[in-house]
Amino acid sequence: MSESFFSSRWVDSPPGTDELSPSALAPGFRAAGTPCGLKAGGGTDLGLVTCDAEDVASAMLLTRNAAAAAPIRVCRDHTVADRIRAIIVNSGNANASTGQQGMADALRMRSEAAEALGFEAGTVAVAETGVIGVPLDIESVSGGIAEVAGALSAEGATAFTEAISTTDQWPKYVTAELDGVTVSAQAKGAGMIEPGFATMLCFIQTDAVLDDADADLRSAVGGSFERITVDGQMSTNDAVVIQGSGMSGAPLPAGLLDAILRQLAIEIVADGEGASRVGLARVVGAATEVEADRVARAIANSPLVKTALLGRDPNWGRIAQAAGMALAGEDVGELGPDEIEASELGGPEREVELTLTLRRGEAEAGIWFSDLTHDYVTLNAEYTT
Amino acid sequence: MSESFFSSRWVDSPPGTDELSPSALAPGFRAAGTPCGLKAGGGTDLGLVTCDAEDVASAMLLTRNAAAAAPIRVCRDHTVADRIRAIIVNSGNANASTGQQGMADALRMRSEAAEALGFEAGTVAVAETGVIGVPLDIESVSGGIAEVAGALSAEGATAFTEAISTTDQWPKYVTAELDGVTVSAQAKGAGMIEPGFATMLCFIQTDAVLDDADADLRSAVGGSFERITVDGQMSTNDAVVIQGSGMSGAPLPAGLLDAILRQLAIEIVADGEGASRVGLARVVGAATEVEADRVARAIANSPLVKTALLGRDPNWGRIAQAAGMALAGEDVGELGPDEIEASELGGPEREVELTLTLRRGEAEAGIWFSDLTHDYVTLNAEYTT
Repeated sequence: MSESFFSSRWVDSPPGTDELSPSALAPGFRAAGTPCGLKAGGGTDLGLVTCDAEDVASAMLLTRNAAAAAPIRVCRDHTVADRIRAIIVNSGNANASTGQQGMADALRMRSEAAEALGFEAGTVAVAETGVIGVPLDIESVSGGIAEVAGALSAEGATAFTEAISTTDQWPKYVTAELDGVTVSAQAKGAGMIEPGFATMLCFIQTDAVLDDADADLRSAVGGSFERITVDGQMSTNDAVVIQGSGMSGAPLPAGLLDAILRQLAIEIVADGEGASRVGLARVVGAATEVEADRVARAIANSPLVKTALLGRDPNWGRIAQAAGMALAGEDVGELGPDEIEASELGGPEREVELTLTLRRGEAEAGIWFSDLTHDYVTLNAEYTT
Repeated sequence: MSESFFSSRWVDSPPGTDELSPSALAPGFRAAGTPCGLKAGGGTDLGLVTCDAEDVASAMLLTRNAAAAAPIRVCRDHTVADRIRAIIVNSGNANASTGQQGMADALRMRSEAAEALGFEAGTVAVAETGVIGVPLDIESVSGGIAEVAGALSAEGATAFTEAISTTDQWPKYVTAELDGVTVSAQAKGAGMIEPGFATMLCFIQTDAVLDDADADLRSAVGGSFERITVDGQMSTNDAVVIQGSGMSGAPLPAGLLDAILRQLAIEIVADGEGASRVGLARVVGAATEVEADRVARAIANSPLVKTALLGRDPNWGRIAQAAGMALAGEDVGELGPDEIEASELGGPEREVELTLTLRRGEAEAGIWFSDLTHDYVTLNAEYTT
């Protein structure tokens, strides 16, 4: 491949990493995507990924939103999190705020997929993304399950990625190999989803032996999907799932999962609603990591900083104000040009960094964020229910 | 007056309230505004308000932003908060992030005003609003102090209001009388202030006897300026000051200060950066007031809700999502159309309400907010430092 998947300035893949065709899943996995009729225009909207290994290891992280969608509740309350053999996904309907019928529909979607695969229902996860507050057309989904199960292929990641995408402007997926271990991952980002939900989903497959899938996933997500913001809004449907077939007999190579998830996370920001640039708000010299994180998030979520990113304005005053708000009531001394390096905001690059130096300790944190643009306003004001 | 100052649907002035000319200050007060050269174009930019009564009672509330401007630090650390005779204000320069020179300039501005008035320096407050990170032209300010002190008049509130305004599209001031007590108040709102600070200032004068000015102010501000958001950003320069001359010999009539500050607060939202509509996000049935407030703020600050307000989209799903984010990790049951009344968002009115009903208790809260518009993005992206 002429252009590497690991294209961000903030991502270094471990030395020796080989990129394979992203349509090829890690050994031991198959996937497919087919149209079932949820998306207008007949787009691919039903996806399935399965692990051939009965002794699969897995972990998942789900949105904590109190208005979580039915599929999130199914995963949280009715799934064996560390033994997920398959995930059935639709795009086009989030099945959120759909009440008891929504729960029944998500459970039926899941049980029919399990039946088609011959798996225990509790080992099948379900994810959905799209319009919310609208009953799921479960008959359409049901009608597509046999087809998607019949189409499973070791080369099916392209169709699967299409099936989980909504308004993503480019597919976000990769397959990479290092030290005899392959990791494949497919993500969808925070596009405009009528009537206004941005959901992030990511599915990861590997032939590594995952001794502690939960710890591996939390660590990699902690440095990637948990460090991004488009508009500071927590979705009702966010889900990240990792599955390991163990077929390589080797552990996860150090750094590979981190690099893959970080690149995917930055691409989600870059493809955020109306986004034209990606910023990294860095805070160093904070008293604690919690404080560094809070200040970095306040900067990254400030509409004044986000419009300065759009306007190529190296406006350190807006950064001082946002940081001062996050540290309200504290005595932080002067926050001026000596403490705030924001010159890259004024430059031409698509990926820029700003750094605030506090003089309170040694802790640091960074948050990636997109700019606030006219397209964001247009996308979100003009779509109506 | 044909049109009442108390024009918002959410404000009722107490029965019997008379509106006087807003240029007339409450008995015992004089004010003035003159140009001193800070504002480009020679606009009125230096204001002074004084109380004739030596035994003035007063209170002030200041921003808690850790990057607070020099005038805020002067008020907080070097002023007798309950004995404020005068306030000297400039617009055009916020004197924020200006270091030790900024503190020296604010103290000099204050001591020269005190000298011109024959007051103790500690009884004079100082407020500033405008560009930040730029040294104050203290010589210009100094040159204007004698003139503004010489122009003090019982009818000076119009010039004073002009002197504290930046990009306000209309003056925000009132004088009202009830039960033999007069209250006058002047405010400036959250306009675009190069390079990106929105400051709210409000000065209140009354001839009432203020037995507990601090409690009166906190209570009225708690139902007004603390319940609004334009873009969720806490300013470096916000200040609200009340002064009582006691000349009426009567206490503050119940409800008058509340109504005045609430109307002014709603006007600040209505005149917020690029704003075209004002929404009130109400949360009822919360477990605690803190919870109700947190959920209402999450709704009011959600860019998805703010663009729905612009787009006249009665999008209850975005309200559910924002509330769910504020209640992350809690079990709140369904948040659907039965719990969320958002139909006014879709209507033609300029002032609209939305209500979320939780089923967790009896507490409630409301936050006024503006919509997020193209003008907001333009104003904040196109002004550069």
